[in-house]
Amino acid sequence: MTLMSGVEKKSARANERKGPGVSRFARGLVAEWKRLGLALAGERIIVAVSGGADSTALLLALDELRRAEVMALDVTVAHLDHGLRGEAGAADARWVSELAARQGFEAEMGCASVGESAALSRDNLEQAARHARYEFLAGAAVKRKARCVLTGHTMDDQAETVLLRLMRGSGALGLSGIETVRELDQKSGVLLVRPLLSWARRAMTEEYCREHGMEVRVDSMNLDERYARVRVRRSLLPLMMSFNGRVVEAISRSAELLRDETAALGVVAERLLDEASAGASEEDGTGFEHASDSSPLRVDVLRDAPRGLRRRALRVWLARGRGDTRRLELVHLMAVEALLEGSRGGRVVELPGGTRVYGKRGWLYLLTKRVEKGAAPV
Amino acid sequence: MTLMSGVEKKSARANERKGPGVSRFARGLVAEWKRLGLALAGERIIVAVSGGADSTALLLALDELRRAEVMALDVTVAHLDHGLRGEAGAADARWVSELAARQGFEAEMGCASVGESAALSRDNLEQAARHARYEFLAGAAVKRKARCVLTGHTMDDQAETVLLRLMRGSGALGLSGIETVRELDQKSGVLLVRPLLSWARRAMTEEYCREHGMEVRVDSMNLDERYARVRVRRSLLPLMMSFNGRVVEAISRSAELLRDETAALGVVAERLLDEASAGASEEDGTGFEHASDSSPLRVDVLRDAPRGLRRRALRVWLARGRGDTRRLELVHLMAVEALLEGSRGGRVVELPGGTRVYGKRGWLYLLTKRVEKGAAPV
Repeated sequence: MTLMSGVEKKSARANERKGPGVSRFARGLVAEWKRLGLALAGERIIVAVSGGADSTALLLALDELRRAEVMALDVTVAHLDHGLRGEAGAADARWVSELAARQGFEAEMGCASVGESAALSRDNLEQAARHARYEFLAGAAVKRKARCVLTGHTMDDQAETVLLRLMRGSGALGLSGIETVRELDQKSGVLLVRPLLSWARRAMTEEYCREHGMEVRVDSMNLDERYARVRVRRSLLPLMMSFNGRVVEAISRSAELLRDETAALGVVAERLLDEASAGASEEDGTGFEHASDSSPLRVDVLRDAPRGLRRRALRVWLARGRGDTRRLELVHLMAVEALLEGSRGGRVVELPGGTRVYGKRGWLYLLTKRVEKGAAPV
Repeated sequence: MTLMSGVEKKSARANERKGPGVSRFARGLVAEWKRLGLALAGERIIVAVSGGADSTALLLALDELRRAEVMALDVTVAHLDHGLRGEAGAADARWVSELAARQGFEAEMGCASVGESAALSRDNLEQAARHARYEFLAGAAVKRKARCVLTGHTMDDQAETVLLRLMRGSGALGLSGIETVRELDQKSGVLLVRPLLSWARRAMTEEYCREHGMEVRVDSMNLDERYARVRVRRSLLPLMMSFNGRVVEAISRSAELLRDETAALGVVAERLLDEASAGASEEDGTGFEHASDSSPLRVDVLRDAPRGLRRRALRVWLARGRGDTRRLELVHLMAVEALLEGSRGGRVVELPGGTRVYGKRGWLYLLTKRVEKGAAPV
């Protein structure tokens, strides 16, 4: 045993505060934060905390980095009670709110009735919950003037997402999984950032919480084997681990490679759309209002492009005209592609949500429902 | 019970011979054959038959279609004994040879010592067996003047391949799986065609063989759980079926979408290579021989391209210079990409097999080993 002098002790404490004393998990977070080019100080961020290990670890690490003076960000904890689990949901909300208060963070708490809104829309419960949550988080960011909303998604979430999409037969866009940074809200430009996604395993967040003596909340839906995601986590990935102990990292790498490739294809698809819409006229005599963001496309330009590129370009074009890609399936894209073949004019493809694609005299038109002049497309 | 007149009987027999009388499996084969734009008559084809259900079903269906006068192709059955299973391998060879004789097909039989050649090269046993098999098949095609070699790969093989590659972390090219048609031999232009791949399930080939009273051969290696592919088939895919009963079809669709997308990216990558090699000089003062098929590339052009596209272009460039992509890993591509960053000149990346990439004064050079002028690059 060696005894430390007063100076040594002081230096050791300083190390603990700043450099090497910062935990490995928190160092991983800072490294990713810098890689993403995000500000370390002078901004407010929203941290979405469910009370589970992933988001709690994210919050604890941000707290550690604040204390170590590595980061100087203003943090608002945000939590939405989806109204799906009664008293259990309310108890989670209290737990998160107390955690935030203990750490001296502001909290933004919300309540929703996801069950009702899922019944109203055609979304399933998981989709409706996600939709309500992201709407709440975007609102919290705008209210608190934050540019970034952080979630605690890990590499394990990424692998689960990729596998779920593979088992549904997705293409590169779907198989590229969850994005590390994306726009959460177009109008405000609020970003959704997942600073654990590309490097942290779920086991690491659990261990980090344990090290902090933090007993996190367990969402009963995360144990419910009626959800495919839960079965992927509890049965499929463990079996895959017997093939490759680092299969989660491998699938995550696949997703990253696909994301680069699909992004590159996206850039080229934009060029194709520019080329295909050159010289387009807004007049087609159909009496329909054109989708405002999707100008007509030349059939010959699309037909000459490689199929994968053409399909991607059509996807972007349809998404723009409709406002999103909801309920847009491969079968719809293929129907639109079929309009490119043959020379018969005046053919129409109906898309979910009421938009139509109309092929006429060598052009493709994206039409919204007949609306009053000046009114927003439906 | 109804009695058929002579005329009705004759017509029923004709139906059996030609149209609706052709089995569903054989009809599937013809439909795919036409979709691929291959000739129905007047050509010789090589059919690779192992004696397992897939390739035997393919051969039986070709026989059915010949009898039904739907196809009029000359068929040569080809079989390679890999020399890995002693008497069992020899027995398979006899079985295939007898089957061919019974059907009146020519047979091309071969023997290899894959164990020895695997020990000599750094390939593993599966790779060495595949290599020996395709070399034998290409040789048989050239000898018999056949343009196409057919194998019995099914949708199940496709799903297994995609899963194995996903568990290793492949990008779009790897995850797009097995190709339906590809060049088997560059010099002769012989094509490798998998006419069952995009539509037939393994269970269908087994059933078709059973219907023909054919007891097929079982390769003990297909039951050996030391092989990852066997465990994918026997454990992983059955578990995935509990998520989606048509998961094999779904994964196969993913592979097809990725193939379109990756092919589109390949077309654009060629354009990028053209642009990046414009104005290249063969003189770089290194004293090395340039890889003959890969002219130098401009660093600035590559640097400005989206990462996924640039990586794909570099992959094509390296494959051309080296002759293939064997043992070329992501880490090598990333090392070459690192040469694009910064402005320090004279840096070198060593690739497996002895080729090097050299970055100097704004250009990338692909160099083979120093060789005698006029000699083939090593």
